Amino acid sequence: MSMNSFGHLFRVTTWGESHGPALGATVDGCPPGVTIDESMIQHWLDKRKPGQNKFTTQRREPDQVKILSGVFEGQTTGTPVQLMIENTDQRSKDYGDIMDKFRPGHADITYWQKYGIRDYRGGGRSSARETASRVAAGGLAREAIKQIAPNVQITGYMVQMGPRKIDRANFDWAQIDQNPFWTPDAQAAEDWATYLDDLRKSGNSVGAVVEVVARGVPAGIGAPVYAKLDTDLAAAMMSINAVKGVEIGEGMAAAELTGEANADEIFMGQDGPQYSSNHAGGILGGISTGQDLVVRFAVKPTSSILTTRKTITKSGEETEIITKGRHDPCVGIRAVPVGEAMMACVILDHLLLHRGQIGENRGRIG
Amino acid sequence: MSMNSFGHLFRVTTWGESHGPALGATVDGCPPGVTIDESMIQHWLDKRKPGQNKFTTQRREPDQVKILSGVFEGQTTGTPVQLMIENTDQRSKDYGDIMDKFRPGHADITYWQKYGIRDYRGGGRSSARETASRVAAGGLAREAIKQIAPNVQITGYMVQMGPRKIDRANFDWAQIDQNPFWTPDAQAAEDWATYLDDLRKSGNSVGAVVEVVARGVPAGIGAPVYAKLDTDLAAAMMSINAVKGVEIGEGMAAAELTGEANADEIFMGQDGPQYSSNHAGGILGGISTGQDLVVRFAVKPTSSILTTRKTITKSGEETEIITKGRHDPCVGIRAVPVGEAMMACVILDHLLLHRGQIGENRGRIG
Amino acid sequence: MSMNSFGHLFRVTTWGESHGPALGATVDGCPPGVTIDESMIQHWLDKRKPGQNKFTTQRREPDQVKILSGVFEGQTTGTPVQLMIENTDQRSKDYGDIMDKFRPGHADITYWQKYGIRDYRGGGRSSARETASRVAAGGLAREAIKQIAPNVQITGYMVQMGPRKIDRANFDWAQIDQNPFWTPDAQAAEDWATYLDDLRKSGNSVGAVVEVVARGVPAGIGAPVYAKLDTDLAAAMMSINAVKGVEIGEGMAAAELTGEANADEIFMGQDGPQYSSNHAGGILGGISTGQDLVVRFAVKPTSSILTTRKTITKSGEETEIITKGRHDPCVGIRAVPVGEAMMACVILDHLLLHRGQIGENRGRIG
Amino acid sequence: MSMNSFGHLFRVTTWGESHGPALGATVDGCPPGVTIDESMIQHWLDKRKPGQNKFTTQRREPDQVKILSGVFEGQTTGTPVQLMIENTDQRSKDYGDIMDKFRPGHADITYWQKYGIRDYRGGGRSSARETASRVAAGGLAREAIKQIAPNVQITGYMVQMGPRKIDRANFDWAQIDQNPFWTPDAQAAEDWATYLDDLRKSGNSVGAVVEVVARGVPAGIGAPVYAKLDTDLAAAMMSINAVKGVEIGEGMAAAELTGEANADEIFMGQDGPQYSSNHAGGILGGISTGQDLVVRFAVKPTSSILTTRKTITKSGEETEIITKGRHDPCVGIRAVPVGEAMMACVILDHLLLHRGQIGENRGRIG
Repeated sequence: MSMNSFGHLFRVTTWGESHGPALGATVDGCPPGVTIDESMIQHWLDKRKPGQNKFTTQRREPDQVKILSGVFEGQTTGTPVQLMIENTDQRSKDYGDIMDKFRPGHADITYWQKYGIRDYRGGGRSSARETASRVAAGGLAREAIKQIAPNVQITGYMVQMGPRKIDRANFDWAQIDQNPFWTPDAQAAEDWATYLDDLRKSGNSVGAVVEVVARGVPAGIGAPVYAKLDTDLAAAMMSINAVKGVEIGEGMAAAELTGEANADEIFMGQDGPQYSSNHAGGILGGISTGQDLVVRFAVKPTSSILTTRKTITKSGEETEIITKGRHDPCVGIRAVPVGEAMMACVILDHLLLHRGQIGENRGRIG
Repeated sequence: MSMNSFGHLFRVTTWGESHGPALGATVDGCPPGVTIDESMIQHWLDKRKPGQNKFTTQRREPDQVKILSGVFEGQTTGTPVQLMIENTDQRSKDYGDIMDKFRPGHADITYWQKYGIRDYRGGGRSSARETASRVAAGGLAREAIKQIAPNVQITGYMVQMGPRKIDRANFDWAQIDQNPFWTPDAQAAEDWATYLDDLRKSGNSVGAVVEVVARGVPAGIGAPVYAKLDTDLAAAMMSINAVKGVEIGEGMAAAELTGEANADEIFMGQDGPQYSSNHAGGILGGISTGQDLVVRFAVKPTSSILTTRKTITKSGEETEIITKGRHDPCVGIRAVPVGEAMMACVILDHLLLHRGQIGENRGRIG
Repeated sequence: MSMNSFGHLFRVTTWGESHGPALGATVDGCPPGVTIDESMIQHWLDKRKPGQNKFTTQRREPDQVKILSGVFEGQTTGTPVQLMIENTDQRSKDYGDIMDKFRPGHADITYWQKYGIRDYRGGGRSSARETASRVAAGGLAREAIKQIAPNVQITGYMVQMGPRKIDRANFDWAQIDQNPFWTPDAQAAEDWATYLDDLRKSGNSVGAVVEVVARGVPAGIGAPVYAKLDTDLAAAMMSINAVKGVEIGEGMAAAELTGEANADEIFMGQDGPQYSSNHAGGILGGISTGQDLVVRFAVKPTSSILTTRKTITKSGEETEIITKGRHDPCVGIRAVPVGEAMMACVILDHLLLHRGQIGENRGRIG
Repeated sequence: MSMNSFGHLFRVTTWGESHGPALGATVDGCPPGVTIDESMIQHWLDKRKPGQNKFTTQRREPDQVKILSGVFEGQTTGTPVQLMIENTDQRSKDYGDIMDKFRPGHADITYWQKYGIRDYRGGGRSSARETASRVAAGGLAREAIKQIAPNVQITGYMVQMGPRKIDRANFDWAQIDQNPFWTPDAQAAEDWATYLDDLRKSGNSVGAVVEVVARGVPAGIGAPVYAKLDTDLAAAMMSINAVKGVEIGEGMAAAELTGEANADEIFMGQDGPQYSSNHAGGILGGISTGQDLVVRFAVKPTSSILTTRKTITKSGEETEIITKGRHDPCVGIRAVPVGEAMMACVILDHLLLHRGQIGENRGRIG
């Protein structure tokens, strides 16, 4: 058991602080023979990188990944893969004056109460920079999945910014890579651009909802009862900084449905069972059905805003604080590649778990 | 690692099928010296028991728990506690004719595809009867928590049935035990009674949203990054049968808030830090703040309804199915004590984890 | 992580005290479709049962196992298997007068110091009766191994009683089941019979060395670096009550060898690599070579002897103690089926781990 | 669960290959507030370093450790500590000609069979250089132990080289640091010097037995049944490269003792229970007694010797191999600091586990 690792067989331990020399991920249990190199992983890190457009933070974070172990002649060896990303640009002076104050909405106060020591520079271990390590691990997971389940496609996108939802009728997969929000609704992209610009200028921030879909996942993965696929997905997404809610399929809306409306009827297709609908989000009883896995999570707005907030100091004095420096007006945007990475890690983990306990799917239908 | 266990130090492994001879929980890592006996655990099982009122299922399930190990002269010994509940009344003939058909919305088809064998009687391992084991474990956890953090109070209640939400303005803690829905809104209790009666007669079902609050939880528990308190709570609730969404604090609604609206400001109270609000649900950076822990989860409507549904057989033939026998028109009601039990197990686990790594809270404020 | 479980994928949690109502094993992660019933497991428990002959303890322990879950229509379902053995004959009065005294050489004092409470009847959780649970789990593991690696044969035998070693030149596999010591040296069996008779009459006890060999294990199982096959075997054997040393292959004697003498040279056989010798005990770098896995462990003599020993009471008074009642003059004899059971559990676990991470062996030779 | 991690709460994941850019340890669960810096860890690595004297290998391995995370202003933060050691001098050409041949006695063949790919340079992941990571982790563990149990002293030493054992009558703790063998018997040090010199010149190698003692360990740590202190110590030592046997206390010799001879009687001392002897090696029922923890392990002779050995190639051809280059005539010498490091990690882990489940020792005596 480890508090800084996730996964059962494909196990990822992340390490590193926002302002330390480096951060990274130790990836254990990767199958051998997976073709991988630094550029393949870098691809996903670049997707996450701030400074890509004017809507995300202006911190410069080159985030160059190095593979320090576990790969030989271009393939994984089956031994731990150490992925390291050196921190190169953290302007300490942006944070220096909050050494003794706790930023509201951040983990400063709880880290202090728990550990009695905290690296106050940029949030230390609680910083969202930890998610760079996850994206790196997810890059490796994606390649390993190809070895076992080559039809799997993992795609994340924003479906809501603040109170503004996309119009599902405008959903176009091809739009996702065409706008800075990775949203499949081109109209929403335009609308959000203006909305966020206004918020950024006013120094405020807003939350978001990200949806991640995995298509082509074989039926039968997931290990009831406590390593259900949805259990692990929920944990994976909830562990991302600033996430406050996770949904599978209908999610919270499932409560409003009647049994008649909710059940996905089953019929027989050419290649096996087919379903009339997918309220279940691709999971029944914690095991995949073969339908699209649909997971959604809500990211709260960042609390690092340019408005003065009331808080206290370590010695218990009431004071005020204002977070200067560069920040993310909508951290949800950068959570998209992180959600994809977590989806990849969990799917791979479950492909391995299933293969371990059972080998191949045992139950034939038809 | 175990797929049928949850928890790190306070570790619960459940076992048993709906129509097997028994089911139970092996509880490992309980602190020694906790006063416990069968009646104390039975109390919580009785809360979960069907047949209590006309709104829940009419199956007779006495659910008498026996303690088979780990307790000596009325106290836990620190060794594994085996809690067993014998199954006494499962009318096999209620299920016998669905041996070859997969009930839509249930795990029948995915268990078959994964394992190639399934105990079709009542859902086997996938049955919600597994939750009886959790409630038993939760009963033990509650007592152990008293030993370490005696101010903790855990209370679950329904906040929504189908599309009908409670009115938070009517919230009265004292109402929760006074109606069959464990809802704090007396008006909603009346309204839901009629609503559910109609649904039951029509043979349909409806979902629900359950909220569980833990008050008096000390600040500082939770182990970033992947055993965050919210991560483990999300996993715990999502693992309950039929749950499709989990929220902490504002949950999915956090997405709609701006940073200014969402951050809970901090000031100094008599006994330590106080917060102006609790959008965070009692958790920051995965660690408890000392505020109320607020978790919500959505339960989908049961798919065992008295309407004919389309499905297929094991051999791939299209057919229809109707689930006869007794069932739950709103499984969400019975999920209330289950949610409480999971909250108890996770909180105890984290109290122990924190004590293990750190001893007491190290960071004093004021 | 669990302190009362072992194994990674095939995970066994044992529970129960010597004088509680029952004890058992929750076996998690067993592959589905393994043919199993109570009699198949009972076979191995009967092998362990005391009272079989005059050399082992005279306690009557029917040890009838019941399968309470995880098996349907004669096959495992892939869900947890609960194996329970009810305690029927523990003469409490045999132990009652040692409620306040700590028996030297037993865990009484350490359990007291750690937990502050102990079930003093028969050693409670520290009793060797816990091994009955392991033997039951091992019975299931053996059947599951047949599904994956049908050529595996696991055989345990005594190679030493007290200071008296077998003569390897007399080694005859067929002798093992023909004498009460499960020893492959018929001459030693005779010699030990007299020796042990004398010890039993004098009320003393003696230790033993047990060797367990697994033949037909495929090459390639074992997961470096910390779930090496030998690491898990060492842990498995050392966890058996009264074990004080574990060896693989040459064991402690490997220290005396030179590199030239120790290395097993490799040549090519009909079916793949062959080795000139097996100093390595079938494991190189923590991974099986395909040769016989050879594990040995030393069992200390029981401290429950009919001689007065000096000790103290809970309140710190010096006193004397004599253990009355029935006991084992050589617990090592009964450790033979326990060692076999552990070998089976570890091998199965590693077959599943290997299949999980890698599928089949990837490296072909020739 | 992770195959490259050990420990439950204080969890160490090592990574890196012999000829990769770096290797290291991710240490998770360290208590916060432990004073640590690179020089304190370097101290232990320097102890392990080859080239210290003419008896160990002549490879130049500076082994400079860097702390990349988890430490702030000279103290641990409670978040993962990343320890990295860059590989600077691995003469690839020393190994290049064995790309296709399997060195007998090494893990080359089993890594190939399992993974289908292996980093053949210097043994890759199977190389003993992995132990540098452990020594680094152990250095951190030692400091953390001081915070919780400041009286603990961990000392390792050689008790046997090849067939030559020390004379226990000459045992002098002060001698351990005074000779290149870390042996407490000055006479043996002289004798071994000559012996090893001869072996080195002849290109052969020899095994060794290392004993590690921990004094001042509080009674009560260890978590029965499967995280017993001796179980975890056995696993820890057996996981060290080239170890083939592990003993606690009397070890294999316990088999030869009678019950009367073996039991350590208990009497009352000034500060609590005292024992007449320590055959148990400081552990009863898997829990520490407060006496010296005594662990011994046997290291086999290295198979990299300058004698031609028979082997096969990847394509199954029979051939010969001779390992050129620099090597260790007695790897057991360098295993001494590694054994100490493992002892430290296991003790710390168990101090934390005990504190987690129980807080302080609950059972008072006297």
